[in-house]
Amino acid sequence: MAPDFTKCIVGALAAAGLSTTDPLLVGFSGGRDSVALTAALLLAGFSNVTLIHLDHALRPESAAEAEWVASFAQTRNLDVVIDRVAVAELAAQMGAGIEETARHARHAFFATVARERACSSVLLAHHANDQIETLVFRLLRGAGPGGLSAMAPKSERHEERRSYSLLRPMLGIWRAEIDAFVKKQGLPFLEDPSNALPDFTRNRIRHSLLAEMERCMRRPVHEALWRTAEVLRAEADFVKTAELLLGPVPEQLDVFELRQLPLALLRRRVARWLSERGVSDIGFDLVESVSHLALRIAPAKVNLPKGAHARRKAGRIFFEGPPLLLCLILLSLRLLF
Amino acid sequence: MAPDFTKCIVGALAAAGLSTTDPLLVGFSGGRDSVALTAALLLAGFSNVTLIHLDHALRPESAAEAEWVASFAQTRNLDVVIDRVAVAELAAQMGAGIEETARHARHAFFATVARERACSSVLLAHHANDQIETLVFRLLRGAGPGGLSAMAPKSERHEERRSYSLLRPMLGIWRAEIDAFVKKQGLPFLEDPSNALPDFTRNRIRHSLLAEMERCMRRPVHEALWRTAEVLRAEADFVKTAELLLGPVPEQLDVFELRQLPLALLRRRVARWLSERGVSDIGFDLVESVSHLALRIAPAKVNLPKGAHARRKAGRIFFEGPPLLLCLILLSLRLLF
Repeated sequence: MAPDFTKCIVGALAAAGLSTTDPLLVGFSGGRDSVALTAALLLAGFSNVTLIHLDHALRPESAAEAEWVASFAQTRNLDVVIDRVAVAELAAQMGAGIEETARHARHAFFATVARERACSSVLLAHHANDQIETLVFRLLRGAGPGGLSAMAPKSERHEERRSYSLLRPMLGIWRAEIDAFVKKQGLPFLEDPSNALPDFTRNRIRHSLLAEMERCMRRPVHEALWRTAEVLRAEADFVKTAELLLGPVPEQLDVFELRQLPLALLRRRVARWLSERGVSDIGFDLVESVSHLALRIAPAKVNLPKGAHARRKAGRIFFEGPPLLLCLILLSLRLLF
Repeated sequence: MAPDFTKCIVGALAAAGLSTTDPLLVGFSGGRDSVALTAALLLAGFSNVTLIHLDHALRPESAAEAEWVASFAQTRNLDVVIDRVAVAELAAQMGAGIEETARHARHAFFATVARERACSSVLLAHHANDQIETLVFRLLRGAGPGGLSAMAPKSERHEERRSYSLLRPMLGIWRAEIDAFVKKQGLPFLEDPSNALPDFTRNRIRHSLLAEMERCMRRPVHEALWRTAEVLRAEADFVKTAELLLGPVPEQLDVFELRQLPLALLRRRVARWLSERGVSDIGFDLVESVSHLALRIAPAKVNLPKGAHARRKAGRIFFEGPPLLLCLILLSLRLLF
């Protein structure tokens, strides 16, 4: 098990163009998965590994966990960067959700450390079970094509004017394989801090829905779901690239041009146009409504969030921002509270 | 409800280029869905509707059901074509599964009637619930990208040297809407004969897994799954078309050319190459192994079903059929049993 485990991770990193002398940052929660990833990197001879840990201050024990991380790094003679963000307070200030704020804080932290250390790669310990849970979660939330492609082994991030690669070299490794590796190597770890995060839906998917799927099919479904994530990611990548090859989205959409596009490209082009106009919450229904402006006669106007709308006129689709009065009201509400 | 119901079906048929005077064949089981579809077509003024019914002879009551269909047609002054195929016996003769044989028999029947009646469209009464059940079923079976796109509102069929369109104008209508329409119109129907078909997994998906998904997410998932099927179909259609635009798959695959392709196209091209070489059971793992012949150095040979294999040599991938001896053994087994 152990050699295969390490080999798999090294293979994934080699595919991303990394060798054992390259500097790596490892997103390190102290849980079983990130401990296993770190141990495998050391076994494989990676010599320039820095652990990075963000204390989200969401649980009373998180400060003690950060200390545990520091001592883990010290014992193994590893460089470590630890920071703390009071996510709950920040979320309240921003009027945003806890999970969303935590994610933003984490990525900002990754970007900062990557810049400070002049390091282009941050490794995360997401594994095959995480991957299928993500797929099922996004599927049942009605994700668009991008969301359905689940997590990529390599994705480019652009945060704080700095680019780095987010690498997930364990997406092909199952939780049971990680458990066996951790046990065999006698590794210490914190008891799954991520399970205590407020993402209860994900825990329900993990603990009950996947089992119900297996009962229903009378056979394991894990491999099938994993392959699906793999297939969908490649297909979505291709469609996304094809849309990007069409070039910049113009300020006004040309109805005739849109109609010539295959439906998948039309939808993605409309989604990009909305995104570049600053529209938030771009879901399937919104993209569909604006696409129908191009494909059908009526209606010639579609309401967008926050008082904006899209209007078809003389063969073109225009974006019309919210009326000035509404902008002022929204702005003053924001300033007041 | 009723006008919307009919309007939705007329809209779907208009999108497929059909008007009320075009001749239509309706796959008619006598169940609630096909009865509702037929009633809606008549309400909408379609004047040239023929019901077509195949008695699969899989249940003792199927002959009586065929008679019920005949009398339903007579009462409504509709043309009807009824045929009978002893599916169980046929499956035993062919050494194939019941469901697969039933599907082949049904499509052969559709093709024959379409030819005899010089009619280009066969309508099926699959609805939105069928669509999401299909998506979940295929997802959990680990379908490839084609399978994941679920059912299309219009698909071209080529059977017995004749092409016709299979239309599903009710894919946007939910079972509850059909129930309400049937009740309001006071329509008679056979008690869901399709529920008694041996597709138990599908019944488990319908009756328990979808409910578990809603419990897990704490909200309805039907709309989300339906949108997913819609998104995936358009994306898969586009990737499929892009692959077809690459032109015919050559007898031998050029490794260098394959490597230039986006992963989604590489996989689809390999799948088509295998399919055109007569390889059966082309699943994800097989496509992946052959793709790896192009992407990696070793191994240079991949075993295919029935003793065939794919071999990489001098920058090309060759298909090698089974050895003559194995062919003879397989052939004699087929002749003996």
